[in-house]
Amino acid sequence: MAEENTIFVGKKPTMNYVLAIVTQFNNNDVKRIVIKARGKSISKAVDIAEITRHKFVQDIKYERITLDTETLEGERGPSNVSSIEIVLSR
Amino acid sequence: MAEENTIFVGKKPTMNYVLAIVTQFNNNDVKRIVIKARGKSISKAVDIAEITRHKFVQDIKYERITLDTETLEGERGPSNVSSIEIVLSR
Repeated sequence: MAEENTIFVGKKPTMNYVLAIVTQFNNNDVKRIVIKARGKSISKAVDIAEITRHKFVQDIKYERITLDTETLEGERGPSNVSSIEIVLSR
Repeated sequence: MAEENTIFVGKKPTMNYVLAIVTQFNNNDVKRIVIKARGKSISKAVDIAEITRHKFVQDIKYERITLDTETLEGERGPSNVSSIEIVLSR
């Protein structure tokens, strides 16, 4: 059965996420991985996707790239933050 | 004639770019604007697109979002940087 996995990009180094994605594509029956990021991590998410695609798993493509705005509840009231969702599939 | 304009995202504040895009959509016969950014400016490009779409020009949509890698020649040799291209159209 084809699985789908989601990676949330946070404060770890870029290559940690790349290697997690590469491992999943190589070792399991994974056909699709979703990379999600918010705010300043969006640039890192794009790096992760591009490095994975160019250096490690050449047969994947961008199935979908979605931009959105999420509202976060903070101590000083709600605030808006941009988000990206990158769907990699092979 | 419908025009197409390109905005390169750099070090200026986010709202400068948003207002430039809103002005073009409102004042001219512009049907399509391309937002381009590299590296850490990618997060800002997504903010610009989302703020424009949610707060100022509701009838635009994302026609295309493209991720790529560009090679820059620096003093210490070539280096790779991720890039994004967001096409807004109405």
